[in-house]
Amino acid sequence: MEKLKERLDMFSDAVIAIIITIMVLELPMPQHDSVSEYLQFGKAIGIFFISFCYVANIWYQHSILYSDAETINNKVFISEFIFLAFLSLIPTFTKLITVDTNRHTVLSYGILTFIVNGLFMLTSYAVVHQKYSDKSDTQKIFQKIYLNHSNFLGMINVIVLILAYFKPNWAVWCYLALPVISFVFNRDDQV
Amino acid sequence: MEKLKERLDMFSDAVIAIIITIMVLELPMPQHDSVSEYLQFGKAIGIFFISFCYVANIWYQHSILYSDAETINNKVFISEFIFLAFLSLIPTFTKLITVDTNRHTVLSYGILTFIVNGLFMLTSYAVVHQKYSDKSDTQKIFQKIYLNHSNFLGMINVIVLILAYFKPNWAVWCYLALPVISFVFNRDDQV
Amino acid sequence: MEKLKERLDMFSDAVIAIIITIMVLELPMPQHDSVSEYLQFGKAIGIFFISFCYVANIWYQHSILYSDAETINNKVFISEFIFLAFLSLIPTFTKLITVDTNRHTVLSYGILTFIVNGLFMLTSYAVVHQKYSDKSDTQKIFQKIYLNHSNFLGMINVIVLILAYFKPNWAVWCYLALPVISFVFNRDDQV
Amino acid sequence: MEKLKERLDMFSDAVIAIIITIMVLELPMPQHDSVSEYLQFGKAIGIFFISFCYVANIWYQHSILYSDAETINNKVFISEFIFLAFLSLIPTFTKLITVDTNRHTVLSYGILTFIVNGLFMLTSYAVVHQKYSDKSDTQKIFQKIYLNHSNFLGMINVIVLILAYFKPNWAVWCYLALPVISFVFNRDDQV
Repeated sequence: MEKLKERLDMFSDAVIAIIITIMVLELPMPQHDSVSEYLQFGKAIGIFFISFCYVANIWYQHSILYSDAETINNKVFISEFIFLAFLSLIPTFTKLITVDTNRHTVLSYGILTFIVNGLFMLTSYAVVHQKYSDKSDTQKIFQKIYLNHSNFLGMINVIVLILAYFKPNWAVWCYLALPVISFVFNRDDQV
Repeated sequence: MEKLKERLDMFSDAVIAIIITIMVLELPMPQHDSVSEYLQFGKAIGIFFISFCYVANIWYQHSILYSDAETINNKVFISEFIFLAFLSLIPTFTKLITVDTNRHTVLSYGILTFIVNGLFMLTSYAVVHQKYSDKSDTQKIFQKIYLNHSNFLGMINVIVLILAYFKPNWAVWCYLALPVISFVFNRDDQV
Repeated sequence: MEKLKERLDMFSDAVIAIIITIMVLELPMPQHDSVSEYLQFGKAIGIFFISFCYVANIWYQHSILYSDAETINNKVFISEFIFLAFLSLIPTFTKLITVDTNRHTVLSYGILTFIVNGLFMLTSYAVVHQKYSDKSDTQKIFQKIYLNHSNFLGMINVIVLILAYFKPNWAVWCYLALPVISFVFNRDDQV
Repeated sequence: MEKLKERLDMFSDAVIAIIITIMVLELPMPQHDSVSEYLQFGKAIGIFFISFCYVANIWYQHSILYSDAETINNKVFISEFIFLAFLSLIPTFTKLITVDTNRHTVLSYGILTFIVNGLFMLTSYAVVHQKYSDKSDTQKIFQKIYLNHSNFLGMINVIVLILAYFKPNWAVWCYLALPVISFVFNRDDQV
């Protein structure tokens, strides 16, 4: 199954590369040569960068995760694909916020990233678990690598979700900040 | 021709990765901030997941099939490309159901998946046949690996097609269930 | 430069994989649930298959060509990219015929495939030439491999172009037949 | 981290391959069978070629740069992704010029290519720096490889930006010429 693992690696990378790039196709063009249209366009580009950062960060964590794994079992395979299915929705939900930044769209976007993060954690668990299944310290390793930050980031996610309900425009800025923060935290881990 | 085989592998994987991801571009956006629009959008996402599962399952079977093969001959090459041509239509037919879930669109979708399954079986036959062409038990091996389930799943497919004619909305649910069932059956095979 | 060659191989394959798949995004959807709309849709799918065959055939010849090459020089690099630039236009010109099959659109499509074939021949020449530059029989080898059929297929191409002017609907059928014929001829070469 | 470097290589290549190809999806179709519409379409194709050349040239420099590198550190990783994020905007800004070639759109396009060039230079610096960090002549090497031309091309870029303000239609032609000139200069370097 070694070979299937490599194929899945490349397949996932290709899917993530497509997700990160097709978001740009969803950018609404300025219709007239007016200042307000260009401001709107600039805001859309800003939101595009949020999702770009988010997916780039996911790709990085995903690569680190699978560089450890040697084989994949069916559980990993299934959770990987459910994770990819939800990740594929990021471009659509990005467009949702771009077109109309209101309470419902920002909340939807927040819930989607919440689900994607959760599914990624499940996949991580499946990958780590299959490798250290015979050792009693699986739980401990996983806790150390993922849960410390996950707890912290998970809590932040919930707070931003609540913020999205009352102040959707502020929440959008938090969604820009979160992957950046997450990346810095992860960097500490690798060093 | 070893090298051409690897290139075809990667090419097919790239094409399937693109097919599975561009489906998301076809999702119709909610135009107004109303409940009925969001429900419509939620239904479209559900249909997107159906096709995502279907293509993910095809990719899995496809990887298993080619991990066996060492070379490809012209027959494999041609049937592979006809198979990919029809598979490429999945995003378009998914959009068809999304926009208007009626008898004709669900039937069209059903017939397309029927054709894709058939073409995949032909490709499988070509791949298995070229490897075991000197052995008299090709037929038997192929029968064992593919036809047992194929007969069963083929029959289900026909039943769902008939269902699609009378109850298109029910048939859509069956199309969600089929790749999941197929995946579970295949898992038994691999273990 | 060995490594650059591999990267160019993969890059070209990725670009061709995207070209062959995004064509499906250009398919016009049936707007109403009427027979004439579905017929129109069926015709669009037929034209999609023409371009799919054409690009699949180009990919095959392209793979065969580069499986021979060990390195690439600047001339190969430049002609490869000019070739890819024109090949990228195939989806757009396919849509042109799909939307309105008239004299001008079919002629445009014909001229585009004519240019792409020509550019592919130039790239082939550059690849073969860099390998056998010290031998006096480069010309002969190239003649043997490519020009025999090229002359023949080039002539057919010109005839179909003329046909496209007078009978665009007939010419479309010829464009379906040409890659199939080309593929069969190439098969003889490989055996 | 060797493996992560390979994955990043392939991921970047995939993203660039998608960027260079999806531009074609943004081409506006001629709506009627009239000469003026076809002229408009021809102009759009010309602008498509400008961006195609630009991205192809970036890909080439990018490949040369990373063929040197053996590992990547976090600084390289972050600047690579910021570079890719801005490069992803090329298709959108290409469409901007295509739809309406005026002072603001051509200036926007010019500023974008200016930013992308600058970010590429920063990435180059990060890659070169991590390799030769212990040598005092990093600065010298980098100067020799990149800054000589960069200074020159940077100056040209500024001049074209000023031109874009007064004569947007002329500036468009310069943007076609720049990647070609850049490619020729780079060729000298490699020989």
